[in-house]
Formats: sequence, structure tokens, C-alpha cells
Amino acid sequence: MGESKMLLLALGSAAFFGIVSIFFVLRWVLHFKEGLGWDGGLAEFNWHPVLVVIGFIFLQGTAIVVYRLPWTWRCSKLTMKFIHAGLNLLAFALVVVSMVAVFDFHNTAKIPNMYSLHSWLGLAAVILYCLQLVLGIVMFLVPVTPVYWRAAFMPLHVYSGLFIFSSTIAVALMGITEKLIFGLSNPKYKDSPPEAIFVNILGLILVVFGALILLIATRPSWKRPSEQLSHILHTSGGGEDNIRVGPALSQLSEGTDDGEIRRRSNRLDDQDKLPND
Amino acid sequence: MGESKMLLLALGSAAFFGIVSIFFVLRWVLHFKEGLGWDGGLAEFNWHPVLVVIGFIFLQGTAIVVYRLPWTWRCSKLTMKFIHAGLNLLAFALVVVSMVAVFDFHNTAKIPNMYSLHSWLGLAAVILYCLQLVLGIVMFLVPVTPVYWRAAFMPLHVYSGLFIFSSTIAVALMGITEKLIFGLSNPKYKDSPPEAIFVNILGLILVVFGALILLIATRPSWKRPSEQLSHILHTSGGGEDNIRVGPALSQLSEGTDDGEIRRRSNRLDDQDKLPND
Repeated sequence: MGESKMLLLALGSAAFFGIVSIFFVLRWVLHFKEGLGWDGGLAEFNWHPVLVVIGFIFLQGTAIVVYRLPWTWRCSKLTMKFIHAGLNLLAFALVVVSMVAVFDFHNTAKIPNMYSLHSWLGLAAVILYCLQLVLGIVMFLVPVTPVYWRAAFMPLHVYSGLFIFSSTIAVALMGITEKLIFGLSNPKYKDSPPEAIFVNILGLILVVFGALILLIATRPSWKRPSEQLSHILHTSGGGEDNIRVGPALSQLSEGTDDGEIRRRSNRLDDQDKLPND
Repeated sequence: MGESKMLLLALGSAAFFGIVSIFFVLRWVLHFKEGLGWDGGLAEFNWHPVLVVIGFIFLQGTAIVVYRLPWTWRCSKLTMKFIHAGLNLLAFALVVVSMVAVFDFHNTAKIPNMYSLHSWLGLAAVILYCLQLVLGIVMFLVPVTPVYWRAAFMPLHVYSGLFIFSSTIAVALMGITEKLIFGLSNPKYKDSPPEAIFVNILGLILVVFGALILLIATRPSWKRPSEQLSHILHTSGGGEDNIRVGPALSQLSEGTDDGEIRRRSNRLDDQDKLPND
């Protein structure tokens, strides 16, 4: 199977599992639990898993791989950066609401906040995500940021982005564990009622979605052509946004392999690099 | 700070947090819980977290970064492969014992097995780890395996290795969550007794250890020089094991940057490649 087909298969699978996870979390709260509301009770708590799955997992995952969509490789890098930042900002907004819901529920029910490892790691992930957003915007979207700062910061931005995303899924799995233990009483979690099986499967789906996003984001031959330098150069010379780079999907032949894409990409990188060095 | 100092700092920090996590899990079971034993009771269950932290997390993490230890860069790649495989086999043996302990405890206490998301994902991680071990040995330690199979399999081996390691930590965090909810009754987990705080901190330490291992394993400039091809070539031509490649730590000057190491590595790769192509 050619690289382009494998990439499309991975993207399609990620979209499938991501959307299915949203259906699962909605069915969990609407069918098995108390539904959705904003009354300080369990229906308000239910916004927490729903908004975390939609925002912190599905939207964050989508934002990570948005540069890997072949039909966007002809768009300017600045456009893609705004889409990447916009999706992450929307995800962050949903996460904030999801946290308000759970604090509100705890306060109404006189349950202490921030006692569990889930809450510690969840809050840490939200704080790191906020920091990642602010630093990402300052580094890559503010025109005056020096090019060498961008170059130096990029590996950290990529690493911490993937780390925060992975941590988010781990924290969600801990949250599912907590909720199934606390929320199931007769029958209990250990008696494996239908809700327990259903939500365990949601957990598996989230792991598969995460694995696909990490694969798509890290496989070198699936990177946007001319990825490395155009991250850094846009706006600094004022011209990068007018350059359309990279082959369209239709140009990637079946037989295209890693080496071919890399060589093509390197040529484009070199072309970009010369006028700016 | 030069690359070599940064690598040493990261390795030292990973070793520190890894060893501290072992002290934490031992103090948890010996001071806060029932100690260790093999009687089908809680003392037997306690081998589960102890052996998971020592084997599935610390030893697996060490095996992943063993190629990144600069003082081993003069050792033959085959020696390092045997160390890598040996550490993983030892880890796997400990994990199997840790699972026997928990099944034994469940059966004695008439608690169902395999009902929780923690158990589903944990078993999946163990099965994938076993598969990774078998395929890794067949692909990279059996002399007759064709070179092009090794080259094709290597990216999958690396990706799945890091994915299994990350999943292991996520599963451990879910296990900690379960145990703190089930194991604390008066005061409860939500009342934050000293044990809850202590074990939450163990969870944080495991995350930091995982983050450091993933950073060391993925940062390109910290890779073993001539990494890419010597993975593939040893034993195939019969000569690679006698080649001593890569600069010693002392040869990495303070100013050594990514590019220098990569260029040096590429030259070595090219030298290795020519006689075998």
C-alpha cells in the first residue's frame, strides 16, 4: 500500500474512532446516566466527560494532525496555523466549562475538590495546555518573534503537545475508572453491568484514537512537505504566506515512499531557505 | 548548555525519578499497607504494584533508553541489543508474576477478574509487550532475518515500544486510582489521608519518569550515532559486531549541536551501508 493510501486510512480511522467516542460518551450520559443539565447536580457533572471527550480529546487530536491532511498542503502555512490555534482555543474553552461543571457539582454535593490523582493530573494537563497555547501563539503567530526563537522552540512545542495529548487520554481513563466505581452501586462495577462494559469500550476507543493521532503526528513520511522551515519562516520575511508548497494528494503516486517524499520536501525546504538565510 | 550535558541531565533525572518511584511503591505497601507475602491475601496483592513499578515501568523505561547512554556508544550494537532484550525479558517475567499475584488474590477473595478498564488495558498492554518482545527477537536478533525486513519493521518497533510504555504508565495510574478508592475506608480517599497524598505523589513521579524517558528516546540529537543502519545490519554481513562506532562522551564538545552529531552519524551510516548494499 502506498504512503498516501496509508495516510488516508490512518486519518479515516482516527476520524471514525474520534466520532464514535463522542457518540459513546453522549449515550453514556443520556441513556445510562442522568442526562445533561446545569443544576449543580449529576446532570451538570455529566458535562464534564462530554466536554472533555469532545474538546480535550477529539478537538485537540484534530488540531495536532491538521497539518497532516494532504488536501491542505496547498494552503498557506499561516492559514493552517490559525486553524491549528483556533481548534486548540475552542478545545480549551470547552475544557474550562467542563471543569466549572465538576467544581460546581462537587461544591453543591459537599464533595471535596482536588483530592484524587485524576484531579491533580487533570489540572496539571489543563495548566500545561494553557501554557502551550500562550507560548505557541507568542512564538509562532506574533510576527516580531525572532526566527531563531521559533526554530529553538519548535521541538519543545511538538514534544509537549504530544505529551499533553497523551496525558489527557490517561487522565480521562482515570476519570472513567473513578466514575464507574462511584456511579455504579447495584449492580456494582465488579458485577459488569451493561453500563460498565459500554464505558470500558469507550475507554478502549479513546486509546485507539490516541494511538492513531500519535502515529499520524510522528510518522516522518506523513509530514506536511517543507514542514521544518516554513514553521519558522512565515511572516518573518513576509513572503512565505504567498508560497504554495507541497504536492497535492493526487500528485502522490501509489509507489511514493518515504524517501521520495522526503527528497521532494527537502528540495522545497531548500528553496524556502535560500532567500531568508 | 551543550547537548551532552543536557542528555546527562535528562538521564540523571530519569534515573532519580525511576528509583524514587520504587522507594515510594515499597513504602506504600510496607508502611501504609499489609506488607509483602504470598498467602492469597492483601500481602500477595501488594506484589502487583511493586513488580509493575519495578518491571513494567522502571526496567522497560531503562531498556528503551539504554541505547542513549553515551558511555555505551563504543560498545558493539549487538551487545546493546542483548542488554535491551534482556532488560525487557526480565521486565516481562516480573509483570507475569505481578499478574499471577493479582489473579490469585482475586480468586481467594472471590472478586471477579477482568471486569475493570484497568484490567482490560493492562492485559492488552501485557499481550502487546509479549508480541513486541517476540517480534523484536525474531527481527533483530535472529541472524537469518533479511535486512529489508529489519528496515521495514524498525519504525513500527520504535512506535509500538513507546506506545506500550506510555500505556503502561496510564494503566498504572488507573490502578493507583482503583486501589486508593477500594483500599481507603476510614478516612476515605476524598478525605485525603496521608496515604492518599503519598500515593498521588507516586503517580506524579511515574508521569515525570515517563515524560523523561519519552523525551530521551525521541530527541534526535541524543540518538546513538549511526543508529539507523546498524540496527539493521548486525549479523547480516557478519562484520558489524566488530565495528566500534560513534564518538565517546568525552568527544562531544560543549558546542556540539544536532547538526554536528547527525552529520557525523550519517557519515558512519554511509560507511556501514556501502559494503552491504
